[in-house]
Amino acid sequence: MRGADGAAPMRGGIDLGGTKIQAIVVSGDSGVAGEARHPTPRDDGPGGVAAAMAAALREAAAQAGVEPGELVGVGVGSPGDVDSVAGTVANAGNLPDWQGSFPLAATLSRDLGTRVAVGNDVSVATNAEYALGAGRGHDSVLGVFWGTGVGGGLILGGEPWHGRGAAGEIGHMVVKRDGAKCPCGNHGCVEAYAGRSAMEAEARRRLEDGHHTDLFKLMVRHGKPRLTSGIWERALDHGDKMTADLLDRAVKALGAGIASAVNLIDPEVVILGGGLGVRFGERLGPAIRERMERNLFNHDAPPAFRIASLGDLGGALGAALLVTER
Amino acid sequence: MRGADGAAPMRGGIDLGGTKIQAIVVSGDSGVAGEARHPTPRDDGPGGVAAAMAAALREAAAQAGVEPGELVGVGVGSPGDVDSVAGTVANAGNLPDWQGSFPLAATLSRDLGTRVAVGNDVSVATNAEYALGAGRGHDSVLGVFWGTGVGGGLILGGEPWHGRGAAGEIGHMVVKRDGAKCPCGNHGCVEAYAGRSAMEAEARRRLEDGHHTDLFKLMVRHGKPRLTSGIWERALDHGDKMTADLLDRAVKALGAGIASAVNLIDPEVVILGGGLGVRFGERLGPAIRERMERNLFNHDAPPAFRIASLGDLGGALGAALLVTER
Repeated sequence: MRGADGAAPMRGGIDLGGTKIQAIVVSGDSGVAGEARHPTPRDDGPGGVAAAMAAALREAAAQAGVEPGELVGVGVGSPGDVDSVAGTVANAGNLPDWQGSFPLAATLSRDLGTRVAVGNDVSVATNAEYALGAGRGHDSVLGVFWGTGVGGGLILGGEPWHGRGAAGEIGHMVVKRDGAKCPCGNHGCVEAYAGRSAMEAEARRRLEDGHHTDLFKLMVRHGKPRLTSGIWERALDHGDKMTADLLDRAVKALGAGIASAVNLIDPEVVILGGGLGVRFGERLGPAIRERMERNLFNHDAPPAFRIASLGDLGGALGAALLVTER
Repeated sequence: MRGADGAAPMRGGIDLGGTKIQAIVVSGDSGVAGEARHPTPRDDGPGGVAAAMAAALREAAAQAGVEPGELVGVGVGSPGDVDSVAGTVANAGNLPDWQGSFPLAATLSRDLGTRVAVGNDVSVATNAEYALGAGRGHDSVLGVFWGTGVGGGLILGGEPWHGRGAAGEIGHMVVKRDGAKCPCGNHGCVEAYAGRSAMEAEARRRLEDGHHTDLFKLMVRHGKPRLTSGIWERALDHGDKMTADLLDRAVKALGAGIASAVNLIDPEVVILGGGLGVRFGERLGPAIRERMERNLFNHDAPPAFRIASLGDLGGALGAALLVTER
């Protein structure tokens, strides 16, 4: 299929997040021809989210000079339990009223007039780094996405590895048996120390215990509803001791968890992404890497360690790759 | 190629261990036609070990009524760093004077008059359970071999996964950051709590600190040079408190490590093997499984959990499978 003007066909990609929807339209070589970003609506459930996704994609398509129906297809990277065969999403905890299974692919496909493929957000972002970013030229990739939670994605032998559908949960590898309680309910997971939500909860506990921090003052001053990665960075810049301490704790947990994963699957490259990963990559990446290397079984052959290179568009670019993968 | 009497061709398999060499000859359907077991010689370096391996294989072949040269080939499962393409083995710490690289495949091939393939012992044993044992019918398998150390093997998508050559080190996944020192030099590894060597070292430390145990008395009484899995079992049967405590510690570390691995790769089945794994499978398997399930991210869909079913011959059977894999 070719566009109306005979040019190579275009694909759409949508990265669905808890706070924002990022849509793009890309050409055959994954060059970005149009993009749009909308906030994720909180009030109208999955249907409202799907409508906002379609609107964002339409805007990106208009920028690229194509109708959505002219696209070869649209790929979606989504949180929650994704059934890529059925095109459904369930248990998306960060999205409004999205516990049951919602037919996201069918809904968007009807609305946009083209076929829609849905994949797991972290897996899709790992695939983008593998195909287009920091993992290019490698056969096996461990993607580590350090943000609100800690997610992971695997490329093994040049193909995404999903296991029985739930592989990649590096954030829930145990680095401290009987350790800190994790948002998942277990104890001692990487995410219990390194996830932004868990770090914020720990900062509140310490504040209530009488320890000093400027984290929450900075949050209020900058009009944020939570401790965003930007707030953590400002607090670190201000020399806030609790911030330095909590980030050090996160670095140690990430290093140990990544080392465990490397000892098990021995990938060629580890790619650190996610909101905190990209923001602190330059600054804390070397410390995470050092902590990882300390716990490698094979000290002589550490994997390459890189920061994700596709930035904010990685998720949407990876989503667009789902289209040709079908 | 067919045997002299027109029967289906046979293959050889050798499992090379630190204390024994197990050789078998199998028919096309992996039925055992002959077997022999020799102690691993301690005095003549890699060359002496290779000669003993050839002798064991010849004995198994004689039992099967074939000449070694009539075999389609012989597979070897070896500890240490195995280069299966070059057919060499290096750094086999449990074997005598075996640090440098030794051309094991070429040496055996010359001696036996048939082609020889070499693979990693744990990987080969995992493959045997996948093809012939407790993993039959599954597409993805995590093999956990609990013995002197704790090794692991992976089958992903029906194929062994080796990473860059060193995958499967589940024994060196970190379950207690900054925890107990492991024989590998790192801290907090599964093997630091669960490996038989590490458990014996910990029992000695506790004894020297004035704690009571009958472990070493039983070892002497039964004429063993170390705390074998049989000695651990006797001590547990005798109600030795330190034994129960150290095994409990091992169970917890194994459970957490296996959970971490499952959270990362999401296999269909976990198979527990190895000297301690097979000996204590019935007795401690349920506790390891319970500990694993406690730390799963996806509590609703635990993998199947099985004890290795091929027993002592698993390694040699897996080694024989290397022949048809070439």
